[in-house]
Amino acid sequence: MIERLSVIGVGLIGGSLALALKAAGYCRHITGVGRDAGRLAQAQQAGVIDDYTTDYAQGVSDADIVCIAVPLNASLEVFKKIHGHLKDGAVLTDAGSAKACVLDDISKAFGQVPDTFVPGHPIAGTEKSGFEAAIAELYQGRRVILTPVEHTASAAVTTVRNMWEAAGAVVETTDVAHHDRVLAATSHLPHLLAFGLVDSLAKQKDVDEIFRFAAGGFRDFTRIAAADPTMWRDICLRNSGPILEALHDYRLDLDELAAAIETSDGDALTEIFMRAKRARDKFNG
Amino acid sequence: MIERLSVIGVGLIGGSLALALKAAGYCRHITGVGRDAGRLAQAQQAGVIDDYTTDYAQGVSDADIVCIAVPLNASLEVFKKIHGHLKDGAVLTDAGSAKACVLDDISKAFGQVPDTFVPGHPIAGTEKSGFEAAIAELYQGRRVILTPVEHTASAAVTTVRNMWEAAGAVVETTDVAHHDRVLAATSHLPHLLAFGLVDSLAKQKDVDEIFRFAAGGFRDFTRIAAADPTMWRDICLRNSGPILEALHDYRLDLDELAAAIETSDGDALTEIFMRAKRARDKFNG
Repeated sequence: MIERLSVIGVGLIGGSLALALKAAGYCRHITGVGRDAGRLAQAQQAGVIDDYTTDYAQGVSDADIVCIAVPLNASLEVFKKIHGHLKDGAVLTDAGSAKACVLDDISKAFGQVPDTFVPGHPIAGTEKSGFEAAIAELYQGRRVILTPVEHTASAAVTTVRNMWEAAGAVVETTDVAHHDRVLAATSHLPHLLAFGLVDSLAKQKDVDEIFRFAAGGFRDFTRIAAADPTMWRDICLRNSGPILEALHDYRLDLDELAAAIETSDGDALTEIFMRAKRARDKFNG
Repeated sequence: MIERLSVIGVGLIGGSLALALKAAGYCRHITGVGRDAGRLAQAQQAGVIDDYTTDYAQGVSDADIVCIAVPLNASLEVFKKIHGHLKDGAVLTDAGSAKACVLDDISKAFGQVPDTFVPGHPIAGTEKSGFEAAIAELYQGRRVILTPVEHTASAAVTTVRNMWEAAGAVVETTDVAHHDRVLAATSHLPHLLAFGLVDSLAKQKDVDEIFRFAAGGFRDFTRIAAADPTMWRDICLRNSGPILEALHDYRLDLDELAAAIETSDGDALTEIFMRAKRARDKFNG
């Protein structure tokens, strides 16, 4: 049970966490913190948060848990604004899609990574954004990955784990570098590929017909290209190393595919497609 | 209304057409034609076809419409088997995902493209295959693209159009080259990208964790990688020109994306992602 939670960044992710904890009766009071008083007021009217402030220092000063759910490019600024204003023993966590960059930011802002900071990443979301899209069920059965560092206080990890479990999530822990590498491969790269495909088609002259002739598979494949451009720009900039690695490996695989097609190597194509289908079927079932 | 239809290749596509026409009361008798008597007998027992034969010549001899729904690599052989055995005035059509190669096949087998042949492509399907996956609703509201050549008899085009509309489809016509180019971009390329991504992930050592951490977007993105490897091998081999072109253009776009990430060019990334999101949102709504 949480007495007071402060959510910095009341969008889809922060708003859904607030709604989920309210629905679970796991949190008594939730303060929304952000730059836009108008939006925060709307979020309060919508019942997503209990009150709000644009004063970051005051907004976190009596919180037991502070959850930062802002675009990755905003986290450094947020850490600077709240540094020195957290209550003793308050637990700090975040919801960024990449973790090494967030640890860089907090050590820049705090001088070191505090024992009470638990880097977190809820693997959930939709192509929508903003608190209007927030739903209490967003985290039901979804994974949340925590990437504590060596000196992170285990009590803080437990507090954050309990919070996400109360919100319905399945919590796992792994190390920072591994998280960033795996997410680059399974989430960041696919988004790049989908954005890239839709963009390259959108640039063609008969774009309307191209999209009209597109089948359901294309719809599924490109749904993630409707995701928030700013958020994905930040992810690309802040997790660039692992993403570029994944993109590099992937382009080698594409070269292999292109070569097999150029040389009409049906066996090579079948082998690649079979291996992929086996993996996909296994992943599915 | 069709008196007698012969479906060569009673799988997902041919089987669903048979079921749809039966459900619509648009076809009195449907003969299944193929190589595997055992499978055809099962399809008959399942009520997908009325009778069947493995003798292609006999199977098409009294059909008013013959629809070929076999993998692209099998169509030449099928055309050879039925050449000279069609009833006078019988209309011939197919359901291949690429059209130039099918026209090559039939002119090889028939000496020329007959006026009564209407190349067709139902843009429908699932990642499943086989008549067991066939459903009468598969074509409801889905597009079927016909690519008649200059000397194709308009009466034959009308007959095939009416058949697909009776099955619930929306029928369009376009020229062969354009069809193959657009489908390469919107269907064949996305399948290659999904197969390639799943395969490159499946080759990594911590594959189980990689897939466990994968979010819903990845699931959608890679669903098409569960498609039939043989069918997709054939598509790659038989529509290689347009596919390689689309793949080439796409890789240039990926290079652009990689360069923007390497140089931390946030504006370029935002522009690409915004353009893609606008196109995707428009396509969606």
